[in-house]
Amino acid sequence: MTYPIDLRSDTVTQPSPAMRQFMAQAEVGDAVIDIDPTTERLEKLTAEMLGKEAAIFMPSGSMTNQIAIRLHCRPGDEFLCEENCHVYNYEQAAFAQLSGVVARTLPGEHGVLQPEQFEGKVRPENDHLVRTRLVCLENTHNRGSGKVQPFDVVQKITNWAHDHGLKTHLDGARLFNAAAATGIPVADWSAMFDTVSVCFSKGLGAPVGSALAGPAEFIRQAKRARKLFGGGMRQSGIIAAGALFALQNNVTRLSEDHEKAAKLAEAVRQTEGIHLDVDPVETNIVIFSIDKELGTAAQLQAALSERGVEVLSVAPQKIRMVTHLDVSMLQVDAAIEVIKQTLPALA
Amino acid sequence: MTYPIDLRSDTVTQPSPAMRQFMAQAEVGDAVIDIDPTTERLEKLTAEMLGKEAAIFMPSGSMTNQIAIRLHCRPGDEFLCEENCHVYNYEQAAFAQLSGVVARTLPGEHGVLQPEQFEGKVRPENDHLVRTRLVCLENTHNRGSGKVQPFDVVQKITNWAHDHGLKTHLDGARLFNAAAATGIPVADWSAMFDTVSVCFSKGLGAPVGSALAGPAEFIRQAKRARKLFGGGMRQSGIIAAGALFALQNNVTRLSEDHEKAAKLAEAVRQTEGIHLDVDPVETNIVIFSIDKELGTAAQLQAALSERGVEVLSVAPQKIRMVTHLDVSMLQVDAAIEVIKQTLPALA
Amino acid sequence: MTYPIDLRSDTVTQPSPAMRQFMAQAEVGDAVIDIDPTTERLEKLTAEMLGKEAAIFMPSGSMTNQIAIRLHCRPGDEFLCEENCHVYNYEQAAFAQLSGVVARTLPGEHGVLQPEQFEGKVRPENDHLVRTRLVCLENTHNRGSGKVQPFDVVQKITNWAHDHGLKTHLDGARLFNAAAATGIPVADWSAMFDTVSVCFSKGLGAPVGSALAGPAEFIRQAKRARKLFGGGMRQSGIIAAGALFALQNNVTRLSEDHEKAAKLAEAVRQTEGIHLDVDPVETNIVIFSIDKELGTAAQLQAALSERGVEVLSVAPQKIRMVTHLDVSMLQVDAAIEVIKQTLPALA
Amino acid sequence: MTYPIDLRSDTVTQPSPAMRQFMAQAEVGDAVIDIDPTTERLEKLTAEMLGKEAAIFMPSGSMTNQIAIRLHCRPGDEFLCEENCHVYNYEQAAFAQLSGVVARTLPGEHGVLQPEQFEGKVRPENDHLVRTRLVCLENTHNRGSGKVQPFDVVQKITNWAHDHGLKTHLDGARLFNAAAATGIPVADWSAMFDTVSVCFSKGLGAPVGSALAGPAEFIRQAKRARKLFGGGMRQSGIIAAGALFALQNNVTRLSEDHEKAAKLAEAVRQTEGIHLDVDPVETNIVIFSIDKELGTAAQLQAALSERGVEVLSVAPQKIRMVTHLDVSMLQVDAAIEVIKQTLPALA
Repeated sequence: MTYPIDLRSDTVTQPSPAMRQFMAQAEVGDAVIDIDPTTERLEKLTAEMLGKEAAIFMPSGSMTNQIAIRLHCRPGDEFLCEENCHVYNYEQAAFAQLSGVVARTLPGEHGVLQPEQFEGKVRPENDHLVRTRLVCLENTHNRGSGKVQPFDVVQKITNWAHDHGLKTHLDGARLFNAAAATGIPVADWSAMFDTVSVCFSKGLGAPVGSALAGPAEFIRQAKRARKLFGGGMRQSGIIAAGALFALQNNVTRLSEDHEKAAKLAEAVRQTEGIHLDVDPVETNIVIFSIDKELGTAAQLQAALSERGVEVLSVAPQKIRMVTHLDVSMLQVDAAIEVIKQTLPALA
Repeated sequence: MTYPIDLRSDTVTQPSPAMRQFMAQAEVGDAVIDIDPTTERLEKLTAEMLGKEAAIFMPSGSMTNQIAIRLHCRPGDEFLCEENCHVYNYEQAAFAQLSGVVARTLPGEHGVLQPEQFEGKVRPENDHLVRTRLVCLENTHNRGSGKVQPFDVVQKITNWAHDHGLKTHLDGARLFNAAAATGIPVADWSAMFDTVSVCFSKGLGAPVGSALAGPAEFIRQAKRARKLFGGGMRQSGIIAAGALFALQNNVTRLSEDHEKAAKLAEAVRQTEGIHLDVDPVETNIVIFSIDKELGTAAQLQAALSERGVEVLSVAPQKIRMVTHLDVSMLQVDAAIEVIKQTLPALA
Repeated sequence: MTYPIDLRSDTVTQPSPAMRQFMAQAEVGDAVIDIDPTTERLEKLTAEMLGKEAAIFMPSGSMTNQIAIRLHCRPGDEFLCEENCHVYNYEQAAFAQLSGVVARTLPGEHGVLQPEQFEGKVRPENDHLVRTRLVCLENTHNRGSGKVQPFDVVQKITNWAHDHGLKTHLDGARLFNAAAATGIPVADWSAMFDTVSVCFSKGLGAPVGSALAGPAEFIRQAKRARKLFGGGMRQSGIIAAGALFALQNNVTRLSEDHEKAAKLAEAVRQTEGIHLDVDPVETNIVIFSIDKELGTAAQLQAALSERGVEVLSVAPQKIRMVTHLDVSMLQVDAAIEVIKQTLPALA
Repeated sequence: MTYPIDLRSDTVTQPSPAMRQFMAQAEVGDAVIDIDPTTERLEKLTAEMLGKEAAIFMPSGSMTNQIAIRLHCRPGDEFLCEENCHVYNYEQAAFAQLSGVVARTLPGEHGVLQPEQFEGKVRPENDHLVRTRLVCLENTHNRGSGKVQPFDVVQKITNWAHDHGLKTHLDGARLFNAAAATGIPVADWSAMFDTVSVCFSKGLGAPVGSALAGPAEFIRQAKRARKLFGGGMRQSGIIAAGALFALQNNVTRLSEDHEKAAKLAEAVRQTEGIHLDVDPVETNIVIFSIDKELGTAAQLQAALSERGVEVLSVAPQKIRMVTHLDVSMLQVDAAIEVIKQTLPALA
């Protein structure tokens, strides 16, 4: 068994030897003054898979999301989002800080909002008020324990948005997980949104990068905004190659991660003193709480770490475990054993 | 009876002849390069009444509030506030638009938050997260039907804030109403906050202006920010005189406005088809809903307007009425009659 | 003789008894939720005099200028201006600080730019570059010793701007002085620009305020931006009345200020050790330098102040004197005497 | 001979087979939640070479420069720079657009400013004025035809800055070229500045990336700002490896690029109708103008491109050629021949 077993995030995956080989051989060019052919191939494939006119490669998902918000909105515009979503909570509020945009948060159940919550949420034209411009959803929802937004719910919300003249953006950092979990193709999810961002350095296992997809003219403006944010990279083909390899090789295997997560979830369910946040676990993220009598999340994290299992304390009494392509089923079994042994020892 | 009876807002008040006279005789100077003596007197009196080191006069409450937030926070900082409060909803989100600051809203009951809601709301130091810096409360709460924040609740919340290294700002546009309603002096309310803004053009009846009070160095910076926002006025003594007159003459009479509002509220309570939002009404704002069978708020507003009573539709089925020094008790009685006659005619 | 004789700025003027009387009787209303009739009269008269569709009253010239720039440009847009102009130097760079706009400065001769300097200054479309959007001129030019921009030069520059798809804004804080000095009506100057801001609290003698004039839809947006900046004032008619009185009574008398300035200039010309910055002085601003052997500007300012003449040190060796309606010709003569006596005593 | 001979920029260089191999084998980790060991090695080596406490890797030089400005300044602060420098002209004015900072430009001679130009350029404390905070220099100067800033001049300017309480930032995108041309070590150049940014994807030949070096606490804040800008990359070691390889292998060879540029310059000098912008050429950038009789820069660029030589038209009558590690001396000779043949044919 190889230790540590790293369940902190699906971002910790290492490029495989084959991916490294593919990257080393990538054809490159100066993407800023010219074209980088590998980056271009990645962008075309991404756009195609998402059913959009165009896509653009960027160094991170924070950049793709925040540039999407910046372009959909102007200073003093507002977007609607779920209160625990990534774009509002984990991207340093770049939307406000860099773009002068304001968020209006709605409380979801494990990240899932209901269409009724949007009623009356478009502010009327009035000089006291900001202008409501955009709805942002996140699918799967990170803090919601990897929950998939129900397809028909998304459909109703995005229809409502478009009916009211709003734009829609999907933070699809783990959209491929949602597709794997439901069998509904990414293009069908993507079709409901004006723009979609996807991440290559999470479950897909590429070292770096994210893409934003949408209408050609929007992506044209996103290229300009990418320059502004300092995301213009020269021979980006080297890392775009990793993302390209990931799209071509690591999409279908995501369901394995879900099976591993289900196994972890089952173990949590059967262990006294810890409780699943969301049950059943739908994709690759398992969040559970630990009874105060047993200790704190920080204590459990430390104790597991000593035994070679890395997890993440995400709240005073909450632990997150994420499965991915660098954790095998055998390692999952081993992690379960470690957890079962560690918990009683904690108290 | 003088019509129209204007119950739309306490901002509609006209300067009285005595106030006009006082303004016309105000001693003035160039407040930008020098000192305007009347403005200085107003600022000193305001600071004194609020128990703060210093105060500064500005053209509007939006400016005093938004400059307070700008100075307490830096771009990428966050403030906590109630979700229906004025600074978040009715000032075009200048905090985000001009200052790159982000709001985190908590749901209140008629604008009143409970201390427990703040637990865990200070974000830890982490590069993904904004920094929590400030708590903003509004007292009385406009959208909460003029509700007074309970003194002990405010005490617990501001103590919590200061214990966690946060600053506190009070949007006291109607703080004098809270003092009148509770008998607790404004200085006692003010003492719980680092900075306080008050408004002269609402129930106090001055034509223009607001003041921000706080530590001397903070107010020094606020003067600089006022210039930035374009709020530096030359011979501001003319309008500062109105505010000064208001402070000296119109504070004690605010309880009359509350009596008038109580009378309006009683009438609503006794009328079929309309329902008080908050009962009892605590200060000078009465918000009621109208049953859909009777019509919409917009229809009722229009029908009342035809009969000489001006009210404000603030939601599809909600009407707001505000009492103030330009509406007499007799006019309130007359307005009640008009409402009673109009309602049945609507349906 | 009344002392002090205040030559620091034309902003120090006090409202006259007649103006105070007019203000005290002004008809007012709530300009934020409704209409303030006096403010409306002022806005209509201003628009009419400037030959624009509409105008809007604001608390300061900084606000009218910076809102004009904000509306003509978007974040990342650029405007061209003279390097010593007011909007770039004396308004805390609100264009950058609040609106994300960048200035490109061109060196003028006493504030006057030549059409040739604009050649090639429109940046091509390129993701590295900002977009050039606007030309701002200032007339008369404060730091340029009140110099009038030559009409044909302004014509060429604004034609060039419009030919290149740029917008034009005139900082006309002292536009009425330019008109008085040249005999060319303000409307003719104004016609060359998309938007014009004028100031009522300078030579016109009103206590507070400025107006921005332009196309109706632009002014509509400016009203929204005024709210954002905190410039929405309720019963603004009180101070708008001062501005209205100024427009109706104090425009034609501006040439008297120019005569007084010419007299001051003549005195400077004849006095050893001090030298006019711009000769001849064209309007109401006299800037002169003082030889280092005699002392510094700060020393001269202090020495004159002791003798009852207030001037402004604007650079280590430079003094500014401004004439206005609160300095009579007799006071000008007296000030000249004081200067002549003070200078030799300085060294 | 291999065509095309690409002289457009030193950013077009391709990673060599050895560099690709090195990148493929890089040890990586999740740099966002953890540490990426290769990135850490690069950052340590960069800091060491520049004599700074710490350094941080970012996707682009625009990001390192603009984050440096953002951290040295607050909204409403000002930095001084040369009017043709990169940070002012070619980074979409992110300093204003994202950070609310204003630039004050001084005219240089081919990018070189003189110490005297800075005299009196620190604005006094005054509510009308921005605060002067920072001096930015660029060395070598791109638009100045790769000119090296004279060491003693830089010393005087940075001393002046520090004496006046200002911070200093060096845009050292091509600092290694300045060191190669003068024999003065990069650390000596770097020592004069608070912060320095260097670029790996220009003459050093790495595919992607830049680093910002400075005090440890500043770099700590820069890490936070990098997240904000979307520059946080997970397994960044892959591309950091390219930069590390470049630092270890491609620094000493930069003088070869200068020899090639000198050869190109000599050819321009001897060719009728074209004229060196700066003579002698000091590093690897050759800018020349073409007489209007012969044609425009765009025409020459197109004609050269047809013959396999790629150059960049940087102004209506100006061409830029840059030498780098993917253009051999033989290719330089060939390019010279092509230019000589093409020019007469143009007219």
